[in-house]
Amino acid sequence: MWTTGVRALQYSFSTLQQTFRTMSTFKTALIQMSVGKNRDDNLENACKLIKKAAEAGACLISLPECFNSPYGTNFFDQYAESVPDGHTCKMLSEAAKDNEIYLVGGTFPEIKDNKFYNTCTVWNPLGEMIGKYSKMHLFDIDIPGGITFKESDILSAGNDLCMFDFHGTKIGIGICYDLRFEELAKLYRLNECKLIIYPAAFNMTTGPMHWELLQRGRALDNQLFIYCISPARGDKGYIAWGHSQVTDPWGKIIAQAGHEEEILLCDIDLSECDKIRQQIPIGKQRRTDVYDTIYKLK
Amino acid sequence: MWTTGVRALQYSFSTLQQTFRTMSTFKTALIQMSVGKNRDDNLENACKLIKKAAEAGACLISLPECFNSPYGTNFFDQYAESVPDGHTCKMLSEAAKDNEIYLVGGTFPEIKDNKFYNTCTVWNPLGEMIGKYSKMHLFDIDIPGGITFKESDILSAGNDLCMFDFHGTKIGIGICYDLRFEELAKLYRLNECKLIIYPAAFNMTTGPMHWELLQRGRALDNQLFIYCISPARGDKGYIAWGHSQVTDPWGKIIAQAGHEEEILLCDIDLSECDKIRQQIPIGKQRRTDVYDTIYKLK
Repeated sequence: MWTTGVRALQYSFSTLQQTFRTMSTFKTALIQMSVGKNRDDNLENACKLIKKAAEAGACLISLPECFNSPYGTNFFDQYAESVPDGHTCKMLSEAAKDNEIYLVGGTFPEIKDNKFYNTCTVWNPLGEMIGKYSKMHLFDIDIPGGITFKESDILSAGNDLCMFDFHGTKIGIGICYDLRFEELAKLYRLNECKLIIYPAAFNMTTGPMHWELLQRGRALDNQLFIYCISPARGDKGYIAWGHSQVTDPWGKIIAQAGHEEEILLCDIDLSECDKIRQQIPIGKQRRTDVYDTIYKLK
Repeated sequence: MWTTGVRALQYSFSTLQQTFRTMSTFKTALIQMSVGKNRDDNLENACKLIKKAAEAGACLISLPECFNSPYGTNFFDQYAESVPDGHTCKMLSEAAKDNEIYLVGGTFPEIKDNKFYNTCTVWNPLGEMIGKYSKMHLFDIDIPGGITFKESDILSAGNDLCMFDFHGTKIGIGICYDLRFEELAKLYRLNECKLIIYPAAFNMTTGPMHWELLQRGRALDNQLFIYCISPARGDKGYIAWGHSQVTDPWGKIIAQAGHEEEILLCDIDLSECDKIRQQIPIGKQRRTDVYDTIYKLK
């Protein structure tokens, strides 16, 4: 109890410093980690990289999609855990608390009421879970000669947005294929988010075609920051594209990883959102009168 | 009357040929013309370039924004005409008929009920006006050290979509700044369009930042073709970016002009829309249940 009290006090103090020191600027880290078949090794690796990123000054740290298991419909059930009382959540909670950082815990397969979800959890510096998001748009595609995948064979889809407060700024969560759906990002924008974080694992077909474009488009259309955090590229099974990326609200890529394991550090200045929203005020210029009445966006 | 009858017959025959020969493939032209202060010279130049493009085999030809006058709030009233009985419409009708082509007649300032609009007219190979669109989102931006512009000082905004049929395919129309609004493009997509044509005049600030990205984003998000047709770059007043562009439904730029006067010819294969819509079926995977109920896209 005493230790917890001291920690809370320390945290309050560091939060206060953070708030006064930065308000709109901070250092962030995207952890493009290698993921293997051994869950414990994956968790240990995540822990180690989170610590390293925090020591480098990052106060908001994000992990990739499927960070505790390989990505594939045949793995989801055997790696699934309940939230928040499973082993992976315990690790995430401790990592957030020990390093006093906000942690977007990538994704892992969640089991709930005998259904499986691709789920992201969010943790504050006290180790408390402050958000949970399950992928809303399941990844079912079929590109002959490229890639065929059907998440809906085993996964159920989430039905809710997830936003959390980070020093007075709202941040939204999406997962990978969600990035293709402009409406989800728009809903976060209409809820005043200035950053959307997508743990994501594009592949060697969709990666080179659409990874950069989709992120830049979402960022510019909604005048906010976008992170996409990929696992490092492996050499068998589902091959992730890598290239974890930070895009600013002007649609400009301000940081991008290669394809190997890497901690991508980046300084963020959220006031860029205010600047572009004032200079190119599309948020106020939307013709909702036309969108909602004469025609329907159904 | 007799001549008209023969023309109609010729047109029917060539339409029939066109329909059987191509169905989904055709040659198109984007006319990136130089625009000066003399309206008659501009119309004559447009005529000449349309003829040249038609002779090169284009059956769908598009002109840029503000093709009969310089672009600027101080020019709109003196160059404004009524539609469809003004001088500029007469020229467009004749050009479509004489060359037996579909013509997206760029834009010019329209006067109607003592109000001014930035208006695009569409003409079929019989010289009939088959569509009219007035810019829905007026260009009011203020980028210090970049560009400040306020169309709403003089223009009124349109309130309607415009779609026309081109050999069984629906084509939608937008104008320049409309491109920044994802909802307009989505409405056309939901109405089964496979191509959206934007006469547009980006400038030396927004051009290098956003011209390519916005078009590629709209194309990919809606899995359709996008044209943007710019005036050639001038050397005084509002300097247009040029770089008229055709983007395919995968978000790939398949043709782009330089910045000088140029007829940009491009072969289009509309079946690409069907291909990507089948392979990455985001059109069917939208979560309208969530967008429309739990949260509102207002």
